[in-house]
Amino acid sequence: VSTQAQVLYDFTAEPGNNELSVREGETITLTNQNVGGGWIEAKNSRGEVGLVPEDYIEVCSGFRKWLLQRRHAVYDEWDEEWDDVKSSGGYAESEAGEGGAINRGGAHVRSHLTDWTHIQESSNLVHGGEVGPVWAYPDYQLDCVVADPKKGSKMYGLKSYIEYQVTPTTTNKPVNHRYKHFDWLYERLLDKFGSAIPIPCLPDKQVTGRFEEEFIKMRMERLQGWMSRMCRHPVISSSEVFQLFLSYKDEKDWKTGKRKAEKDETVGVMIFSTIEPEGLPDLDLTEVEQKCEQFNRFTRAMDDGVKDLLTVGNEHWKRCTGPLPKEYQRIGKAFQNLSSVFTSSGYEGEAALTDALTAAGKTYEDIAQMVAEQPKKDLHFLMETNNEYKGLLGCFPDTIGVHKAAIEKVKEGDKLVATGKITTSEKTAMSKRASTMSYALQAEMNHFHSNRIYDYNRVMQQYLEQQVKFYEMIAEKLRNAHSQFTTM
Amino acid sequence: VSTQAQVLYDFTAEPGNNELSVREGETITLTNQNVGGGWIEAKNSRGEVGLVPEDYIEVCSGFRKWLLQRRHAVYDEWDEEWDDVKSSGGYAESEAGEGGAINRGGAHVRSHLTDWTHIQESSNLVHGGEVGPVWAYPDYQLDCVVADPKKGSKMYGLKSYIEYQVTPTTTNKPVNHRYKHFDWLYERLLDKFGSAIPIPCLPDKQVTGRFEEEFIKMRMERLQGWMSRMCRHPVISSSEVFQLFLSYKDEKDWKTGKRKAEKDETVGVMIFSTIEPEGLPDLDLTEVEQKCEQFNRFTRAMDDGVKDLLTVGNEHWKRCTGPLPKEYQRIGKAFQNLSSVFTSSGYEGEAALTDALTAAGKTYEDIAQMVAEQPKKDLHFLMETNNEYKGLLGCFPDTIGVHKAAIEKVKEGDKLVATGKITTSEKTAMSKRASTMSYALQAEMNHFHSNRIYDYNRVMQQYLEQQVKFYEMIAEKLRNAHSQFTTM
Repeated sequence: VSTQAQVLYDFTAEPGNNELSVREGETITLTNQNVGGGWIEAKNSRGEVGLVPEDYIEVCSGFRKWLLQRRHAVYDEWDEEWDDVKSSGGYAESEAGEGGAINRGGAHVRSHLTDWTHIQESSNLVHGGEVGPVWAYPDYQLDCVVADPKKGSKMYGLKSYIEYQVTPTTTNKPVNHRYKHFDWLYERLLDKFGSAIPIPCLPDKQVTGRFEEEFIKMRMERLQGWMSRMCRHPVISSSEVFQLFLSYKDEKDWKTGKRKAEKDETVGVMIFSTIEPEGLPDLDLTEVEQKCEQFNRFTRAMDDGVKDLLTVGNEHWKRCTGPLPKEYQRIGKAFQNLSSVFTSSGYEGEAALTDALTAAGKTYEDIAQMVAEQPKKDLHFLMETNNEYKGLLGCFPDTIGVHKAAIEKVKEGDKLVATGKITTSEKTAMSKRASTMSYALQAEMNHFHSNRIYDYNRVMQQYLEQQVKFYEMIAEKLRNAHSQFTTM
Repeated sequence: VSTQAQVLYDFTAEPGNNELSVREGETITLTNQNVGGGWIEAKNSRGEVGLVPEDYIEVCSGFRKWLLQRRHAVYDEWDEEWDDVKSSGGYAESEAGEGGAINRGGAHVRSHLTDWTHIQESSNLVHGGEVGPVWAYPDYQLDCVVADPKKGSKMYGLKSYIEYQVTPTTTNKPVNHRYKHFDWLYERLLDKFGSAIPIPCLPDKQVTGRFEEEFIKMRMERLQGWMSRMCRHPVISSSEVFQLFLSYKDEKDWKTGKRKAEKDETVGVMIFSTIEPEGLPDLDLTEVEQKCEQFNRFTRAMDDGVKDLLTVGNEHWKRCTGPLPKEYQRIGKAFQNLSSVFTSSGYEGEAALTDALTAAGKTYEDIAQMVAEQPKKDLHFLMETNNEYKGLLGCFPDTIGVHKAAIEKVKEGDKLVATGKITTSEKTAMSKRASTMSYALQAEMNHFHSNRIYDYNRVMQQYLEQQVKFYEMIAEKLRNAHSQFTTM
């Protein structure tokens, strides 16, 4: 089977380098993904074959689509899979009584991953008071710093790539990762947690920097945002694969861990078998459906709100960097122009006015520059945060969809018992599983809400603080300009 | 001879009122100017006759053109006229020696205006130090207040007009004038002083108010500016006709004065016969020509500079009242919209953020309104002052033209003597007259420069002061909005 990919950015081949020119939006076929050095070999629609930088293409969206289809399909096979787990001892055991939570579900998986024993692969849900179920949060909030992008090269220096330094706050020991490694992590997380936790796409298409340096800086900033968000999630941040990414010891450790992670079978809906609603009672189905529907409405409304803000912000950005500073510049020039005309009057006692007028003109030119540079200082972060949320909100319909499918299945329970397709205890087990999923979704909602409140408080504070500084500085500059005119 | 007029504004006739609908730019023929009540009877190109508000039409530009032609033509007749004055005793007398200045030139005129004896109709030029000749300025600077526009009506209330109250700072006694009276004054001043002093057109065409109230307010403000400028000119402000306008005792006094002023024969270049360069030596022709040329260049350069500033200011005005506040409004709405979405989350502890977000949104809506209203508070005066200067600068080419024609005449002097056309003493007299004109022009230049420096200092101070207040207020509002977000 040939792999198709979408081209994300224009790429012009350097002559004599066996490269292939591609255009944004073009679909290409990957003919060799093991070229290395940040390159893949691809064929375009005209049959031409050549090397293309792997960061310039995206297989993600296709993969994502496939994964989502699989995830929905998988749900129907879940009972079967779950039964496999059960028959292997893990689930049956935990069903028999409490206390077996730690081994539950994980047992089957762990038989394949015998040396991943230093990390607890199951996650606890606890009651968070007024807000309902929440994830059990660790005492120490993990974070990491993505910094110091460095050019590396392969293939005798012919092909280059960027390596970012990732330093977790726990160990404070940096590890290096290329974009493709982040992408690998994203695919692992999506595969493993995607049914329960919305995993936002890696920053990619939206990168707007026109120059390489700007592009790298922007990508780094967005990778930082993505990584911080992942760190903040207790389930993701405590997972084996995430810990591997953040703190592998050496190249060998990384490669072994990678291979293991790729073989991980706790993917799709299987993740729910590793979630333990600690001391939480079974849920009322109607209540769950209502909560779910409310959250669904909320995420859609927020998606609209966020997109609206992004549209408005984009237009404001354009005005602030385009026509508005041009206008202030022209005002500044007009004052300075008038000043130089006045200088030519030959009239005595002109200097005080012309100096002041020139200073006022220069002030408006300064203001023009300030206006043009301001969006980078404030609007930028507001836009980035909302962009991140747009991506995150885009994942919820799928997460909610998986949950809805489970509820529907449970609703059929009585009919299935009546027609003798399942036993009463199987129906009870099914309800229990759906209950776990509902708890997980509610914990995820609460996680989303608390993060959202934190993020929007922070970004609005930052935005307004910078806006205040901006207007204060303009006022200060104008006050100076004003003081140079003499009262007569 | 039929009088043509240009229509300044669209006017739609009220049916059954004997009115005539006219369109801006249309040329109409005045068929009866004595209708009264602020109306004149006119005929359009289709032969339709009806009443049109007299303030909606302009005969000024045609009159002005005619006057200027006449003024240039008059110059050639000047020797003749001047000789008339001479033969009547006035000029010859003053030529004989000093001290006769007060009666010079004025004598002939005053024979027609026997009871206008309380005002000295001649103007003195004195040496102003470094800057050269200046007008003799009075100790007390005259000014007046144009205020309190009131609707008056005539023709049994069918036709209405606006009467402004004009209060000179000298008497503090208000007199009432309609726009047509200001226009009458303008024509008198142009006729009498136009050869020596640039008399800016009355505010008219540029009036932009869309509603009657706004229109009246704007016109009043501009009449105020025009009157203040006239008050500031020592020659104009001390003239009989200007004093009449500012402080007539009653309707009878006004009517008598009006008739007298209309019969004033000291018009066109004759005004120079009333100017006395007190103790100033005859001028060097080359130096005069250079100064004149420099001033000519200066006024043209300033005209360009002022027009440039007006263009820039107009665009800025449009942006500040159009797209910019709309954008701030949309930013405000987007924040408030997001706030109301957040309110619907059903999550506990949401209120602090949503309240703050709503407040931030409202702040940007406030800012939108502030931005839209700001031009009226600052840009307006900058634009008005520059508009005034545009008008004033437009008068200088004519004033300078009259002077150039005089210089050319003097240059021919030797040739005229050689060919026996004039005597040597006539040539000397001619030089003396040209010298007076040059002094007058230089005094006028200096008057212009000192006023310009005063006006631009004042308007820039006012503009920047308001700008500072504006940005400070925005910063203050945003500081309040910022303080409502909580750090977590």
